[in-house]
Amino acid sequence: MTAGTITRRLNAQATDFNTQLDQLLSWESVSDATINQRVLDIIDNVRSRGDAALIDYTRQFDGLNVAQMSDLILPRERLELALTRITAEQRTALETAAQRVRQYHEKQVQDSWRYTEANGTVLGQQVTPLDRAGLYVPGGKASYPSSVLMNAIPAKVAGVPEVVMVVPTPRGEINELVLAAAAIAGVDRVFTIGGAQAVAALAYGTESVPPVDKIVGPGNIYVATAKRHVFGKVGIDMIAGPSEILVICDGKTDPDWIAMDLFSQAEHDEDAQSILLSPDADFLDQVEASMQRLLPTLEREEIARISLRERGALIHVADMAQAVAVANRIAPEHLELSVENPEELLPQIRHAGAIFMGRYTAEALGDYCAGPNHVLPTSGTARFSSPLGVYDFQKRSSIIYCSPEGASELGKVASVLARGESLTAHARSAEYRIKAD
Amino acid sequence: MTAGTITRRLNAQATDFNTQLDQLLSWESVSDATINQRVLDIIDNVRSRGDAALIDYTRQFDGLNVAQMSDLILPRERLELALTRITAEQRTALETAAQRVRQYHEKQVQDSWRYTEANGTVLGQQVTPLDRAGLYVPGGKASYPSSVLMNAIPAKVAGVPEVVMVVPTPRGEINELVLAAAAIAGVDRVFTIGGAQAVAALAYGTESVPPVDKIVGPGNIYVATAKRHVFGKVGIDMIAGPSEILVICDGKTDPDWIAMDLFSQAEHDEDAQSILLSPDADFLDQVEASMQRLLPTLEREEIARISLRERGALIHVADMAQAVAVANRIAPEHLELSVENPEELLPQIRHAGAIFMGRYTAEALGDYCAGPNHVLPTSGTARFSSPLGVYDFQKRSSIIYCSPEGASELGKVASVLARGESLTAHARSAEYRIKAD
Repeated sequence: MTAGTITRRLNAQATDFNTQLDQLLSWESVSDATINQRVLDIIDNVRSRGDAALIDYTRQFDGLNVAQMSDLILPRERLELALTRITAEQRTALETAAQRVRQYHEKQVQDSWRYTEANGTVLGQQVTPLDRAGLYVPGGKASYPSSVLMNAIPAKVAGVPEVVMVVPTPRGEINELVLAAAAIAGVDRVFTIGGAQAVAALAYGTESVPPVDKIVGPGNIYVATAKRHVFGKVGIDMIAGPSEILVICDGKTDPDWIAMDLFSQAEHDEDAQSILLSPDADFLDQVEASMQRLLPTLEREEIARISLRERGALIHVADMAQAVAVANRIAPEHLELSVENPEELLPQIRHAGAIFMGRYTAEALGDYCAGPNHVLPTSGTARFSSPLGVYDFQKRSSIIYCSPEGASELGKVASVLARGESLTAHARSAEYRIKAD
Repeated sequence: MTAGTITRRLNAQATDFNTQLDQLLSWESVSDATINQRVLDIIDNVRSRGDAALIDYTRQFDGLNVAQMSDLILPRERLELALTRITAEQRTALETAAQRVRQYHEKQVQDSWRYTEANGTVLGQQVTPLDRAGLYVPGGKASYPSSVLMNAIPAKVAGVPEVVMVVPTPRGEINELVLAAAAIAGVDRVFTIGGAQAVAALAYGTESVPPVDKIVGPGNIYVATAKRHVFGKVGIDMIAGPSEILVICDGKTDPDWIAMDLFSQAEHDEDAQSILLSPDADFLDQVEASMQRLLPTLEREEIARISLRERGALIHVADMAQAVAVANRIAPEHLELSVENPEELLPQIRHAGAIFMGRYTAEALGDYCAGPNHVLPTSGTARFSSPLGVYDFQKRSSIIYCSPEGASELGKVASVLARGESLTAHARSAEYRIKAD
């Protein structure tokens, strides 16, 4: 990069572009042996000492003077109280967002189904909600009320009877917007604990914290490491990498808009990634000029500057076909199709967490209130995973109900295959149900 | 246990029953530091040396005299050849099973959807298949053709263009039934590699093995450990524990049938778990007598005997309500409701991988040919996870397409919430789209 530029410029037609792109995208979360051992110790301690361990860790890590576990429990009334401590405008915005998120997610509910075969055999799938879900909410600066809505509402729409939230309150700092969001989203219980100890408590339960079936929500490296370790004992959501946006623009959107869309990712943290693809080289210059002018006006200028310098790019593509090819290669978390006719491109997009279509659909709208979830697959995992959704809080049981005739027919097939696998008790169990001809 | 008995007898009304049940169910896969390091080394080696590493490991672990990578590739024609090397009866059985599995799984296909709001804003979900799936098939004795069908067919039904299978052939041992099943299931490419090296190759790709997006299928501790490590780079299915069956019987099914159903789990391996619940104590005696008589007639008697002794149980329950409560606590992989009216119990079953209803529905029918998948959540993970299905090979992208009016309305809400989170670039990006009143 030349001095004074905000971010790198690449050309997708360069011979070494694929290598450059790989370097730009490369990201592997550091698995530090020390952190790993520290987390394992915390989990063991919470499993063996329960509440006492939670109290100790909360004193130690959150600087809270806690005497007993009841000091770490926020009753539902405290959440309701938060609703009176935020502004009316904020409350309306949260309620509007919640209502839209609920409406969208209701479309994701999966129903049980079954069908009956000619001989009376019934096959189907029974869909049921989890019994209890745990929601991790970070404390301090990364404590986002929007994340409370996005994580808790799908669970409630799925029909999960009990949603338990944990949120650390370092030095007693309570975020009223977060509690208000919890009240609106229907969170049932809140514990003011955090870190690996909160994850361990949710996974294994303590005297006060009920064990949950699945833990969702973002967190720091300790939280992510703990989630990895309890995976299998409970379900977890994807372990998120840094947030990213890929904008494809035909060069006809206001360059200030595009610059601000890129900033809205870059301001998240220094590792966030903002990339713009356009076939119009002049437009890339215009966006860069906008960025030069607007960057100094950002509250989070320093974070955005580092993110753009280290991980951002403006990429010149030959045409829209190449833009789509690069997008599919990246499999971005957020994809903006800031073009005249985004419907034309949509069928060609194979991998993306969320697709923001047209010039008016700023990614920020999806972050807060459009309706779809803002918990999305990062770091190329959109190749094989989906936004957080109601389906993450439902599970399926297969249903098989054979009629005597069905069991007899299927028994013959099963017998041949089981014997082919030398599993003769399987075969004999099936053969008992074969009718004598 | 008294000497001479086959398995333990418990009473669900005993005061210490919960503790006994916990002990019976307790199972944690051993995470051995040596295996872990060995697997990490193998992954690193395959990432850096590609095919050459695969050739070395296959020589070393599978005792194969391999000269070049092409010796480890089975073309589609070789799979077709296998169809001529199995019996006509076996081929028909495989084809019948495949057709039934395909028919059931077609019901699981999820479609894209969208809806339009009053102001023209469009919201939706685009569902697409993975680009490429990898299927691990164990070699030697645990090489099951039925697993090939159960893993490959959902991927193909989902529309995955390329399904790549790996199967080790220790000392050149090729299982023709496995290759025939691959041909029938529509597997596209087969590599005769196995172990952690095969998982690494599928996750990262080599000169010959294409990188996949998701790896499914069972394997030994090296395979399971490798899957855990590549999770995040690719998707994986659940890491399976030992297989289990829970039978609830009202005491009116032929005790020989129930004994053989329990054996069909127990013969899998020494860690497999077979449990029977009945309110009829005499029936438990009858089943035990059947087991005493039939166990010596099993080909896999020794495995079943150890499994039943170490992990099996016949449990006397007070009534059906208690049976259901115990079943929900166990969240079994396989649940047989061997009762007169299983429909009555079904709505009360909250957690189970697959539910086999009525006296005729032997679990073995589901293992091979009923239609539903036999890859099911084990070790209580049915509390939060589902059978392998088409949904494991599809992913979703959220769609947001705001009209100018929609963007303006949503922009106001997003602005309030973003400013509440001190993310002002988010707010400004949304505010650009607000119309002047």
